[in-house]
Amino acid sequence: MSRAAVLTSQVSDFPRWYQDVVAKAQLADNGPVRGTMVIRPYGYAIWERMQAELDARIKDAGAQNAYFPLFIPESYLQREAEHVEGFSPELAVVTHAGGKDLEEPIVVRPTSETIFGEYMAKWVQSYRDLPLLLNQWANVVRWELRPRVFLRTSEFLWQEGHTVHATQADAAAYARRILHETYAAMMVDVLAIPVIPGIKTPKERFAGAAHTLTCEAMMRDGKALQMGTSHEMGQNFARAFDIRFLDAEGERPYAWTTSWGASTRMVGGLIMTHGDDSGLRIPPRLAATQVVVTMVKAGEGVAELAGTLVDDLRAAGVRVALDDQVAVAYGRRAVDWELKGVPVRIEIGPRDVTAGTVTVVRRIPGTKTPTPVAGVVAAVEEALSADQAALLREAEEFRDSRTVDVATIDEATEAAGSGWARIPWAAVGEEGEARLAESAVTVRCLLRPDGSVPEAEDEPDLIAIVGRSY
Amino acid sequence: MSRAAVLTSQVSDFPRWYQDVVAKAQLADNGPVRGTMVIRPYGYAIWERMQAELDARIKDAGAQNAYFPLFIPESYLQREAEHVEGFSPELAVVTHAGGKDLEEPIVVRPTSETIFGEYMAKWVQSYRDLPLLLNQWANVVRWELRPRVFLRTSEFLWQEGHTVHATQADAAAYARRILHETYAAMMVDVLAIPVIPGIKTPKERFAGAAHTLTCEAMMRDGKALQMGTSHEMGQNFARAFDIRFLDAEGERPYAWTTSWGASTRMVGGLIMTHGDDSGLRIPPRLAATQVVVTMVKAGEGVAELAGTLVDDLRAAGVRVALDDQVAVAYGRRAVDWELKGVPVRIEIGPRDVTAGTVTVVRRIPGTKTPTPVAGVVAAVEEALSADQAALLREAEEFRDSRTVDVATIDEATEAAGSGWARIPWAAVGEEGEARLAESAVTVRCLLRPDGSVPEAEDEPDLIAIVGRSY
Repeated sequence: MSRAAVLTSQVSDFPRWYQDVVAKAQLADNGPVRGTMVIRPYGYAIWERMQAELDARIKDAGAQNAYFPLFIPESYLQREAEHVEGFSPELAVVTHAGGKDLEEPIVVRPTSETIFGEYMAKWVQSYRDLPLLLNQWANVVRWELRPRVFLRTSEFLWQEGHTVHATQADAAAYARRILHETYAAMMVDVLAIPVIPGIKTPKERFAGAAHTLTCEAMMRDGKALQMGTSHEMGQNFARAFDIRFLDAEGERPYAWTTSWGASTRMVGGLIMTHGDDSGLRIPPRLAATQVVVTMVKAGEGVAELAGTLVDDLRAAGVRVALDDQVAVAYGRRAVDWELKGVPVRIEIGPRDVTAGTVTVVRRIPGTKTPTPVAGVVAAVEEALSADQAALLREAEEFRDSRTVDVATIDEATEAAGSGWARIPWAAVGEEGEARLAESAVTVRCLLRPDGSVPEAEDEPDLIAIVGRSY
Repeated sequence: MSRAAVLTSQVSDFPRWYQDVVAKAQLADNGPVRGTMVIRPYGYAIWERMQAELDARIKDAGAQNAYFPLFIPESYLQREAEHVEGFSPELAVVTHAGGKDLEEPIVVRPTSETIFGEYMAKWVQSYRDLPLLLNQWANVVRWELRPRVFLRTSEFLWQEGHTVHATQADAAAYARRILHETYAAMMVDVLAIPVIPGIKTPKERFAGAAHTLTCEAMMRDGKALQMGTSHEMGQNFARAFDIRFLDAEGERPYAWTTSWGASTRMVGGLIMTHGDDSGLRIPPRLAATQVVVTMVKAGEGVAELAGTLVDDLRAAGVRVALDDQVAVAYGRRAVDWELKGVPVRIEIGPRDVTAGTVTVVRRIPGTKTPTPVAGVVAAVEEALSADQAALLREAEEFRDSRTVDVATIDEATEAAGSGWARIPWAAVGEEGEARLAESAVTVRCLLRPDGSVPEAEDEPDLIAIVGRSY
């Protein structure tokens, strides 16, 4: 069961390792149009589970799902100055439809702030209509010159929430609720990715936002990945789209809006946070298949025992699959299940039937334990719970081991060669950001000294987390 | 609680009634780009439940979800002659992206046969890879000159399945399995819409298909709506995209493919099958909210009793919501719940608390029954089950009462003024279809005399179902 030929090692060439995993675990292929991707069933099953977990938390936060059109009149984008400037270089434009040239070009949505704004203005009449909390699951298009599957694609899948509030305080509280209770909670508890919630610098803000909140994760090459963002839009979009409401005093002030999104990029983050030289490692809580019961070879009683274990595990609420492909060499199948990162594999061969034991193989710690048949369900439940926690702990330790406190831009740039630097924001500022940018290093987010998320970027004593990023 | 002003009546102006329901039940709005729609939360919740029910049945049929790109090179469509001819007039074309004019124009997918074909050809190597059963949930674009919300929109949401098989027989059996066990079963059992499965005439076939199977439903104005289709593609797409496989004899024959889709059009079908002059009537099995517990006005013990009933119903597995908006006049709320078609409404006022009874209002039969508090859960469960069956029965009776057996094209045309005609296909043929078309009447599908679905359109003794359609 040599693995030498399966994947490039992470240490020798991390980007190549990533491409290898994506291809060999059959997660995705490149699409025919530049920068697009075909998400294959195994990759899509990961995304479906992420969707389900996020969707439940979005509904818990009181937001309702809706669906807005793919096509946006070009004029909508132009109503908010920073927004149009931010997105213009990335737009795909439809100029011809139904056999004719169009009078006004149509933009394929790069994000939907503008079209939500147009309709929310109609739906919001009085303070009784607020807050208005909407979300949609959709595809969006941002033309990518340097695409990378899941991480930067010209089309990607995401959810985008858009909300309207009566006060700045209510909008700020909601944007933070989504950051912590929806995004960070799901990413930490389900994806086992120890994201750091923080606030972006003005330079790194979303186009048109007053403040951008972010969840930043460290990948196994030491680079950062932005896993989700939540934006306080202030009154910028309310002014651009005339979102006003009759308040209790009979005035019609502008409302305050937020928007927030997380995308298929999370799949890339999952791969690069937990993957190793044998392939993926899927956190048990996320895994669509938590356990695969594998028949090593045919033999008396093997299929029956495998069937019994599948039934017992399913009855215990475990998501289980059966691998009965005994015509395929077992070594090849074992390598494939490791590549795919299924948390637990149960091996059953003819001798196991006689002995009344099976082998429980745990992908995350990499252990193999002979286990009496009667103890399998309990052993699996314990393994799934322990390994979920172990993945998170391992990722935390890795991140902390690659993060250093520094005092100068030069030191920060050097630290960013292998991980992150923590540096007083006062020692960076706009000028420092420009110097970091010369080495492709950015401020990922700003934190308070106690690690909590600031109200704004200009609070005193903030710490900047600095690194290279995807 | 006068209803005169709420909706146009079905009898006086059915299309206007439809528009009124869509607007007043807050299902959808027209989008800013011609023919697009904004699906509002109440409409989207209906679609989400349809998706969940269909997705479970698609997975039961062994298909796996994947996601293919929105953008397709124009050249792909041109590889299958009938396909490009069928879709060319409806295409939206991206000519400009990332700040530049594109060398090759990109088509926004009107359907994904061609791009699935390209990749399935790579993934299928040998007979061991077959059948390959894929599905995707996606948006597609077909430019509409006469759009109508949910029924014909320039962008719509759907699922499209694409499968590859080793033999014609296997492909035909799978296309039929989807027709009956996935589409018809879900539409009859969940949507309570008594669809008729049949086969399309060559004139009405999908562009590029060998046979098109369909589920046809009758709306309350007597017109037909195509609710879902399943296509046997023969080897047309396999030849165009070189989908071949190594068979057991060492040959590399072309494979046989199918495709099948159902869309947000089903929401329109639901409205027009069950709606009445008071609004929607949602089948209990579909309803995201099956029961709304309404506080008629504030009063001692009202909120407590309402809370208890919500908890009891939820514990019994009922999907229940609370309406505690006592500041809004009850008559207005009652009209709104009727418009939205929630199957059961429970009214609780201060006198009910004293009496120990509440009023159970059933939207489908239109009854109001005082019910002892202790009997509410049982009464609700019985109502949900009975009313699901009643809706289906009512729709069946309506359809049968509007269907007549005729012998000539003239009689068929006349019958299509108020419903459907059944006529021997031998009395219609291509020439008859052309004559029907002069009165905007079409053959909806062909059936065997016993009502079963023919293998092909040229079987003897087939019956044509003829009508106007959406």
